[in-house]
Amino acid sequence: MSREAPRGRDAYRHFTRIATRWADNDAYGHVNNTVYYQWFDSAVNGWLVGEGLLDIACGDPIGLVVETGCSYFTALSFPGEVDVGIAIDRMGSSSVTYLIGVFPVERVEPSAQGFFTHVYVGRGNRRPTPLPEEWRASLDKLA
Amino acid sequence: MSREAPRGRDAYRHFTRIATRWADNDAYGHVNNTVYYQWFDSAVNGWLVGEGLLDIACGDPIGLVVETGCSYFTALSFPGEVDVGIAIDRMGSSSVTYLIGVFPVERVEPSAQGFFTHVYVGRGNRRPTPLPEEWRASLDKLA
Amino acid sequence: MSREAPRGRDAYRHFTRIATRWADNDAYGHVNNTVYYQWFDSAVNGWLVGEGLLDIACGDPIGLVVETGCSYFTALSFPGEVDVGIAIDRMGSSSVTYLIGVFPVERVEPSAQGFFTHVYVGRGNRRPTPLPEEWRASLDKLA
Amino acid sequence: MSREAPRGRDAYRHFTRIATRWADNDAYGHVNNTVYYQWFDSAVNGWLVGEGLLDIACGDPIGLVVETGCSYFTALSFPGEVDVGIAIDRMGSSSVTYLIGVFPVERVEPSAQGFFTHVYVGRGNRRPTPLPEEWRASLDKLA
Repeated sequence: MSREAPRGRDAYRHFTRIATRWADNDAYGHVNNTVYYQWFDSAVNGWLVGEGLLDIACGDPIGLVVETGCSYFTALSFPGEVDVGIAIDRMGSSSVTYLIGVFPVERVEPSAQGFFTHVYVGRGNRRPTPLPEEWRASLDKLA
Repeated sequence: MSREAPRGRDAYRHFTRIATRWADNDAYGHVNNTVYYQWFDSAVNGWLVGEGLLDIACGDPIGLVVETGCSYFTALSFPGEVDVGIAIDRMGSSSVTYLIGVFPVERVEPSAQGFFTHVYVGRGNRRPTPLPEEWRASLDKLA
Repeated sequence: MSREAPRGRDAYRHFTRIATRWADNDAYGHVNNTVYYQWFDSAVNGWLVGEGLLDIACGDPIGLVVETGCSYFTALSFPGEVDVGIAIDRMGSSSVTYLIGVFPVERVEPSAQGFFTHVYVGRGNRRPTPLPEEWRASLDKLA
Repeated sequence: MSREAPRGRDAYRHFTRIATRWADNDAYGHVNNTVYYQWFDSAVNGWLVGEGLLDIACGDPIGLVVETGCSYFTALSFPGEVDVGIAIDRMGSSSVTYLIGVFPVERVEPSAQGFFTHVYVGRGNRRPTPLPEEWRASLDKLA
């Protein structure tokens, strides 16, 4: 596999610090690969809520995940914290693909890099809906 | 700690078979203690749905967890399956405490034993509500 | 996104049946996207253990995850079970990329399709090691 | 149930701040009851590692969980953080029961209160072993 070099911290526009948990470590003593994806949607949805865009309980639209992927470079272990960086990789009319990087605190090289594609849909009909102007304006901050 | 002897399979009225997952194993190579609680509410809520009582998306009432506990006797590891037994330990006007036992498949002694107390509340107001007659009738099968 | 059509059940050589759990459902009432990845490494590692190749506690080599990805087509919800199909997508000297499909029981179309790349490494040094002949012979059954 | 009044922050000797995750929210929009237990062993084991007592990968003794319990008072939701307080409830020759409180950040009343009993065992034989003097001395800080 010839992979592109992973992106550094300067590729990201927003960071969320997240504590690892004991249960994150798997039988080989490292954070299980699935946990990184928990951090992905925590970072994206947390940012959307913080911007006042997403209201998980009642808001409209909501974001559904249609595709994700991750490359793992170095292992992480509980205890400790990570910084999860997000940036916009690609914005469509009703979807956004976020570039995501997981960095050990105080480290400049990522432990993992991935992407996370949200399609924004009506809460009731769960059909794709064009991103509201307010969303586009805020999302531009991650571009 | 002088604990009562754990109850055998005959103390339970319904069993749910659940597959362990790779991520269930923690750094010491055994199913993490928190996973047993995932099996507890899977067994109880799965039974309630199967009986046609609980409708997770739209039904009323719903069950909220107010207290749980578990004693661990022997370790479990992925891969493998477990049988999770449930029975009624105590029924109040709007709450039910379930006795729960986790058994390795084909084993008569439990790996863990616990309890799980649900309070049934209105979906909208989240206030305790007397158990509907239909629920009581079905729950009697677990007594 | 012009995606290839998802593969049906006949693209897979082995299926693992896994029960969903209450905690798998997220705030929108569907199995969270990260749970599919828990099924991925459960299906792959469970098969390797069942074949007598992987010994999680003591064996050598072990498999480390270097890349994963998943496309989500339709939502799943607890309660219920899924069939997780695995096949070999690509075999290198010390790595295997598995094609993975998640099917609702009794359904022919997948709910999700992904891949999972393991690099096999020495337990002690965690460096890539050529796949033992015994592993290759067994893995051929998934080709 | 006549329960004792839950203990305030002053009952605890050490606090760990932990970020909630998107996947923590269950189908009713609140942090699932099992996640609190993930915070319990994160708080206890994280403290033990921070004190230089527990070495998850190689140290001896290690702590195995033999009993846990939790009472839930108010719901929590992602996004947000919690403070998890720990104190010693009871110390035996080879076991420690920790009192644990989960507090929303900046709140004085707990969202949940529980306990967590570790038995300390030899890494190799997994048999209970008397707590080393160094452990007792450090644990006294939580008394």
